[in-house]
Amino acid sequence: MPTNQQIQLDNRPVGEAVASNFKLVTTETPALQDGQVLVRHHFLSLDPYMRGRMNDSKSYAVPQALGQTMGGGTVGEVMESKNDKYDVGDKVVGMGGWQQYSVVDATVLGALRKVDTTHVPLSAYLGAVGMPGVTAWYGLVKIIEPKAGETMVVSAATGAVGSAFAALSKARGCRTVGIAGGPDKCKYAVEELGFDACIDYKLHKDANSLSAALKDACPNGVDGYFENVGGMVLDAVLSRMNAFGRIAVCGMIAGYNGAPLPLTYPALILMNRLKVQGFIVSEHMEVWPEALKELGTMVATGKLRARESIAQGLEAAPEAFLGLLKGKNFGKQLVKLV
Amino acid sequence: MPTNQQIQLDNRPVGEAVASNFKLVTTETPALQDGQVLVRHHFLSLDPYMRGRMNDSKSYAVPQALGQTMGGGTVGEVMESKNDKYDVGDKVVGMGGWQQYSVVDATVLGALRKVDTTHVPLSAYLGAVGMPGVTAWYGLVKIIEPKAGETMVVSAATGAVGSAFAALSKARGCRTVGIAGGPDKCKYAVEELGFDACIDYKLHKDANSLSAALKDACPNGVDGYFENVGGMVLDAVLSRMNAFGRIAVCGMIAGYNGAPLPLTYPALILMNRLKVQGFIVSEHMEVWPEALKELGTMVATGKLRARESIAQGLEAAPEAFLGLLKGKNFGKQLVKLV
Repeated sequence: MPTNQQIQLDNRPVGEAVASNFKLVTTETPALQDGQVLVRHHFLSLDPYMRGRMNDSKSYAVPQALGQTMGGGTVGEVMESKNDKYDVGDKVVGMGGWQQYSVVDATVLGALRKVDTTHVPLSAYLGAVGMPGVTAWYGLVKIIEPKAGETMVVSAATGAVGSAFAALSKARGCRTVGIAGGPDKCKYAVEELGFDACIDYKLHKDANSLSAALKDACPNGVDGYFENVGGMVLDAVLSRMNAFGRIAVCGMIAGYNGAPLPLTYPALILMNRLKVQGFIVSEHMEVWPEALKELGTMVATGKLRARESIAQGLEAAPEAFLGLLKGKNFGKQLVKLV
Repeated sequence: MPTNQQIQLDNRPVGEAVASNFKLVTTETPALQDGQVLVRHHFLSLDPYMRGRMNDSKSYAVPQALGQTMGGGTVGEVMESKNDKYDVGDKVVGMGGWQQYSVVDATVLGALRKVDTTHVPLSAYLGAVGMPGVTAWYGLVKIIEPKAGETMVVSAATGAVGSAFAALSKARGCRTVGIAGGPDKCKYAVEELGFDACIDYKLHKDANSLSAALKDACPNGVDGYFENVGGMVLDAVLSRMNAFGRIAVCGMIAGYNGAPLPLTYPALILMNRLKVQGFIVSEHMEVWPEALKELGTMVATGKLRARESIAQGLEAAPEAFLGLLKGKNFGKQLVKLV
């Protein structure tokens, strides 16, 4: 069995997460038991939710155990199989974690899924045709429930979720406005991802200024908002919501690294009769087939071409992850392992 | 036609509302046109939403015009009628405003409604069997959607909405916990209104302390919360919400008189996958018949015996209203005009 490099959580962050929270170790992959397969990971997905799991406090996710390999989504190839349903060479998506190889009990429902790479690149199953894509789909379709002609806004617009959100929202006939950090991301959002407009939040020092920019970009107000960041951005969008607006709360990355960021004016929820709903896509597995079908078709037909930020090699994962928390990535953040 | 005392909005509050914002005037009631009726008001309803209308800023309610009679719900008796559907002596509920008499065009849908006082006292149509009761019903039944065995919490527990909420929630088999100000209200909530427990928020100097008290009163956490007050109370309850909890936002009275009160930890909406939804009951007229039927039966059969705070005479209305905003009332705040 091959030697396996892994990145473990060595200690928990105090405030901001840092590289020394992680530790690179080398182990041997164990011999396969019946029902198991050995997967060589081609790509590892880095996602904001992982920051929450690094804390030991009450959160929606079970805390990442210390001294264990960091969890995370992976795509790869079956190298050995003691499971009739998987052959050597099969391309698979799973939760292999921050390591080069994983041994998976493929008899466990949902542990591993075979994917077709004829029209969809393997890495897309960690992005547009994976968890981030379904996240965008669930928030838009099941919580926001958009109507043609309405205005939709998404923060972290050029990320994996934001990219998919744009394609799904435009396909439903909505004006779609992004919020992203920096002129390059905003240009890309409009020119490549199909956003009608994109606001650079870095040009705005406070929520009032950002709110004014939103007013220009959303002349009919905002009917649906997909929240990835929290803080000042949430305050600004909340001030532009129309009556009966819907906010799908998927992430509050701005507050992940330190003290909770308050919501300045919650009475707007009442004044504008808003629905604000948090969700975690892994709790809604029933929608995945429908969502993946739409997303897969969009990728295969070129209607959704999401950008990827690819870090090279497992040892690059911690810095890439810390950069993701600061918005340094541009598109879906992956680590290439092969 | 009779002489009519009215209270007008004379000027808008700067910060806290004060008695000098109002002005008492005397006018003559005009002669009736075809379709109109003259109503003598027996009771005027005072409600927190009126404070929002005193401002000129963007709100869900159209601002109260200066130099006009304050709007508000009334119950009374038809004194003269030029409308075939109304006879002298009929008991009616309407939006007569802060005055002794109103001339109502009863041909306008919803302007006036005849009520039966055989089993339900006239004043109850401004409380348990009126807008506050339907407000409790809508928030509980349509937003919170309680299941038997769950735990429900309501703030301003002994007010008109809170009283109705308790009866409706208990009828659905839920543990029902109130939050109110002072030992008398808390005792009344448990002994008369049927709450399983009631927490005196005045004993707690901050949200952490109130949250600890909630933990004791809600050993299984909180599944549904009906929000009337905002501020520290909302922060505290939010910290006790179970996964997939629902919060119906009906009022944020704590912030009505001054600067907006922030929500300290909005990320809990995500962590616990909460739904937080604002509503105004007047936008959901379709539920009123079903809600009023349940509420009327509860009052007629003694299952809901809501307390009233009754101020005497129109001139007492401003002080009673300002007291309501500070929680000085005990139960539904009314002004008796006859």
